[in-house]
Amino acid sequence: MLDTIRYNPHLEVVELLDQTRLPLEKVILRCTTEGEIAHAIKRMQIRGAPAIGVAAAFGVFLGLRRFEGSEEAFSTFWPELLALLRSTRPTAVNLFWALQRLEATAEEVLLTKGEFIDRLALARQRALKEAQAILQEDLAMCRAIGRCGADFLKDGETWLTHCNAGALATAGYGTALGVFRAAKEQGKRFRVFVDETRPLLQGSRLTAWELREEGIDATLICDNMAGSLMAAGKIQGVVVGADRITADGFVANKIGTYPLAVLARYHRVPFYVAAPASTFDLSITHGREIVIEERDPDEVRAFGERPTAPIDMPVFNPAFDVTPPELVTAIFTNIGALKPPLGAAIRERMAGLPTRPGPQARPAAAPAGSPGSAA
Amino acid sequence: MLDTIRYNPHLEVVELLDQTRLPLEKVILRCTTEGEIAHAIKRMQIRGAPAIGVAAAFGVFLGLRRFEGSEEAFSTFWPELLALLRSTRPTAVNLFWALQRLEATAEEVLLTKGEFIDRLALARQRALKEAQAILQEDLAMCRAIGRCGADFLKDGETWLTHCNAGALATAGYGTALGVFRAAKEQGKRFRVFVDETRPLLQGSRLTAWELREEGIDATLICDNMAGSLMAAGKIQGVVVGADRITADGFVANKIGTYPLAVLARYHRVPFYVAAPASTFDLSITHGREIVIEERDPDEVRAFGERPTAPIDMPVFNPAFDVTPPELVTAIFTNIGALKPPLGAAIRERMAGLPTRPGPQARPAAAPAGSPGSAA
Repeated sequence: MLDTIRYNPHLEVVELLDQTRLPLEKVILRCTTEGEIAHAIKRMQIRGAPAIGVAAAFGVFLGLRRFEGSEEAFSTFWPELLALLRSTRPTAVNLFWALQRLEATAEEVLLTKGEFIDRLALARQRALKEAQAILQEDLAMCRAIGRCGADFLKDGETWLTHCNAGALATAGYGTALGVFRAAKEQGKRFRVFVDETRPLLQGSRLTAWELREEGIDATLICDNMAGSLMAAGKIQGVVVGADRITADGFVANKIGTYPLAVLARYHRVPFYVAAPASTFDLSITHGREIVIEERDPDEVRAFGERPTAPIDMPVFNPAFDVTPPELVTAIFTNIGALKPPLGAAIRERMAGLPTRPGPQARPAAAPAGSPGSAA
Repeated sequence: MLDTIRYNPHLEVVELLDQTRLPLEKVILRCTTEGEIAHAIKRMQIRGAPAIGVAAAFGVFLGLRRFEGSEEAFSTFWPELLALLRSTRPTAVNLFWALQRLEATAEEVLLTKGEFIDRLALARQRALKEAQAILQEDLAMCRAIGRCGADFLKDGETWLTHCNAGALATAGYGTALGVFRAAKEQGKRFRVFVDETRPLLQGSRLTAWELREEGIDATLICDNMAGSLMAAGKIQGVVVGADRITADGFVANKIGTYPLAVLARYHRVPFYVAAPASTFDLSITHGREIVIEERDPDEVRAFGERPTAPIDMPVFNPAFDVTPPELVTAIFTNIGALKPPLGAAIRERMAGLPTRPGPQARPAAAPAGSPGSAA
């Protein structure tokens, strides 16, 4: 078990694993103010939508704890606190959702009658409890996804994963990597190949590190090596996370997911997606409705400060791609496995469940910080 | 037209484009001794089997030109000269072949009667002529391959290439990239997407630079982005080089070639291979007879000196992969296009042509320096 973020009650601080120092150093950041949390989110010391949501929730608690002043001063402080945290990652849907929960929780107490100082004290308590609840809900959801997927992994198999849909992207257990954690808890022996995941190398930097920390037998490859492993019969399953899944079962995920799905189909290897119910966006049906964010060309034509291509070389750098439902063998979710026909399964099983906010509440292209994402 | 290597008769030097300085600087190395040539090959300032063969041939000429001494001294100098050049890249088949040609040419003169000094002078002349001939033969072969492939590229199309089967790997025109040069000479308008080609980035560093120098409209992508371009209908053809092609038409080439062939098949995009007759190895039939060289794990888990994964992370780093004949639409060669069934076409058209030396003369795994290779 890997703690991406947690509240340390002895030291009364929020502890974050600094992901910018990985894979070379395991550094724990201790945050005591909302400003430190906001800074950590902005610098991507913590990343992945669920983890960002939890961090922002703790940020609200830290802000309430730090505040000392009159009710009038608080009426300025409170919206500023929420705005500060909201501004850290403008595309992260979970961030807004978590902040709304904290806002409602605190205001339920703050807007009652009685001494302001008492109401404030109670709001602090409730905010901490709510932040802890969001964290625990995310962990429970990931564990359920992991158990669901682990049933599909047979003893002795070798699976492949892409990007980082791991503990590091969630509150601490992961979606795709949660499948491996759960399989290990079930006592299964297996091996994992990890795509390095160009251009940002989330596979090399994060997944490789995370699986080693967990004691799982993992081997790193370049993205273009998965094909020959499959041709040699060395892969029995592929599992990836998802940024967004449409009502018809189109899966938007980190660039490089779709070619893996095609290769898996060609070699008759099952291709699985692991995602919480909150990843499903029933407001859209076809994959072409998803806008593909294009990112900075220098991610491809330079490595850090060092150019690796002509510095003015034109680049096409889409952040993610879309895999159609016909290439997906099953989707592992916290409410069980969804199997083809995926459109029918999604509509039947997700009806009435809390899914993602409607399109009004979401920016057009939100791959970077959406659930399961590793950006 | 890009001069990878040439003899400058005015300065009486061999000029090489220093490929270790690309893509940031275009530096011409001027070599006046065989030692400088050997050093340039070892440091990979010149690379690609055809180019190395030409360089070594010029190295023999420079050695003969520099020698001043008795016939007795020469009898020691001559085998040392050949051994020095032979030792520069032990896996490069073309290197041995070029040196054998130079050895035979020089000895034909040296072993006759007459004054040693006259024989030596004549051997120098003949060596320069032979080295120039090897260079011109390679250029002519590449031009023939280019013309053959360009007939398949229609005006307005967009093609994709992988690695560097370009002027930089040959004496100056390229195999896969020769197709684009020839298409441009035919006045066709077209666009090229260039795979960066992990782990060594020959696409970013070399192909991107080379196509820009040539004024060809080129866009760089990560290897894992080709799939979504094909899904969007943006690619009308794929052309790659080859390290070795078996009698049955199995194509060994830079890692990442095979998944492109699978993606091309899935999206009904033609997949072409461009290679000289010398790439065909009729002594083997099936792809599984080709031994896959595995390279240094640090190529994948570090960038230069900078680690990008846990430093002891296990890595699988095959240098190349094998594409079966059923995924190849046609092979562009210097004697025309070979079409399926490839086994029959290869046996019929290559019979009697000079192909690669038999397996005795070749190391088990020689992807790095074989024809069309970019390593």
